[in-house]
Amino acid sequence: MKQEKPSLDFERVLPHVSIDCVIFGFHENQLRVLLLHWKNSHTWSLPGGRVFRDESVQAAVYRILEERTGLREVFLQQFYTFGETDRLKNTDFQAIFADFGFDLEAGNVLFDRTVTVGYYALVEYSKVRPTPDFFTDECRWWDVQELPELIFDHKEIAEKALQTLRRQLSYQPVGLNLLPEKFTMPELQKLYETILDKELDRRNFHKRMLAYGILERLEERRSGGAHKSPYLYRFDLPKYQKALEEGWKGDW
Amino acid sequence: MKQEKPSLDFERVLPHVSIDCVIFGFHENQLRVLLLHWKNSHTWSLPGGRVFRDESVQAAVYRILEERTGLREVFLQQFYTFGETDRLKNTDFQAIFADFGFDLEAGNVLFDRTVTVGYYALVEYSKVRPTPDFFTDECRWWDVQELPELIFDHKEIAEKALQTLRRQLSYQPVGLNLLPEKFTMPELQKLYETILDKELDRRNFHKRMLAYGILERLEERRSGGAHKSPYLYRFDLPKYQKALEEGWKGDW
Repeated sequence: MKQEKPSLDFERVLPHVSIDCVIFGFHENQLRVLLLHWKNSHTWSLPGGRVFRDESVQAAVYRILEERTGLREVFLQQFYTFGETDRLKNTDFQAIFADFGFDLEAGNVLFDRTVTVGYYALVEYSKVRPTPDFFTDECRWWDVQELPELIFDHKEIAEKALQTLRRQLSYQPVGLNLLPEKFTMPELQKLYETILDKELDRRNFHKRMLAYGILERLEERRSGGAHKSPYLYRFDLPKYQKALEEGWKGDW
Repeated sequence: MKQEKPSLDFERVLPHVSIDCVIFGFHENQLRVLLLHWKNSHTWSLPGGRVFRDESVQAAVYRILEERTGLREVFLQQFYTFGETDRLKNTDFQAIFADFGFDLEAGNVLFDRTVTVGYYALVEYSKVRPTPDFFTDECRWWDVQELPELIFDHKEIAEKALQTLRRQLSYQPVGLNLLPEKFTMPELQKLYETILDKELDRRNFHKRMLAYGILERLEERRSGGAHKSPYLYRFDLPKYQKALEEGWKGDW
């Protein structure tokens, strides 16, 4: 899909504030991140953008996510705001924009210091339609373990998102939006293991997950396996939502 | 201490971005928050301020904290950035600044939409010298359970900080900076109970805390008690620091 040249309405944009999104998907036992490739360059970046003056930061994130993924309903978590003075240093924005046909003055507010609010999103891989924008020619999933070079501080932003997602496992359920509607216990365990980057004991995982009371076991089993077919589960949405809001009943 | 009228150097300030601090202290078994009282008003607010153009957001927080508390070494945690469009609505900033002797135009950038980055700080109560600024006549500790009316969205900011501090208990040690250097196990337990707003089992707490390996038991005991005097502890700083960085070895 060819994207039209945007109008760059500077008056509409809130200066000095931007958004960057780390969009996680889970596919073939890999945790993946959606990245954009800039035209005529070797540069990859996180999807992101500007906040309009009449738009909340959160509304801007949903807008940007929908533009890049086609999805509106996603799990979204703000995790950190990056405020270093030299975040965008060594970048000749004027030249880059000139390449794209924009004749901007050196003092343009787009080139000025920007504080960026980082969000991560958990999305169902199969439902995403990765969509580049006018400045980029590819929107591609990358294994979180093998990210390419990223512009600015985007590597740091992606790493901090992963670190926060790991922590989320200790006080919130994770899985909805990352897994398909129906899944097996081994699939759920694999997701946890992938996020944590370590193996978990099968028995303990199974027991603990059931104890949380957020899973509903279906009558169906996954067919086609060589061994005994595993049961299918789905999340009990009201209980899952409650656990998200209240946090796990932890050990304290 | 009388504060001089500030010069309000607008050129120096990064527009559209501000900082708000929720400063927690622990005293007489209360978790307390440091608030500022605005002159000639009934208004209380969180300590906060602006970021200079040549200053990182984090450096600005340390500067503001030192101005209000006299402390430089504190535990500091960014927890959320508040980006609603109507955060500052219904406030006649022009009139307020006029009251303080500043003749500012209605279009001044100080009155424009601001996204605020929320930090919480854990400080040792007895070491803080609460210091009001030019606009305020009192800087006072309030029990977190009994906060007064606060301007803007500051109540929401304070609540979100407390919620995040609670969560921190599930993946990080808490206590350093909030407790004096030497403390008893009941005092540490009381801190946890106050943050969580619920009672904990004495035996389990004791056992779990020792298992973490971040406490050093001293030969001294707290003197003067009616019953058997409890041992004094202090944090083993390198181990505490390691636990902060790596997170608790949780159940996963």
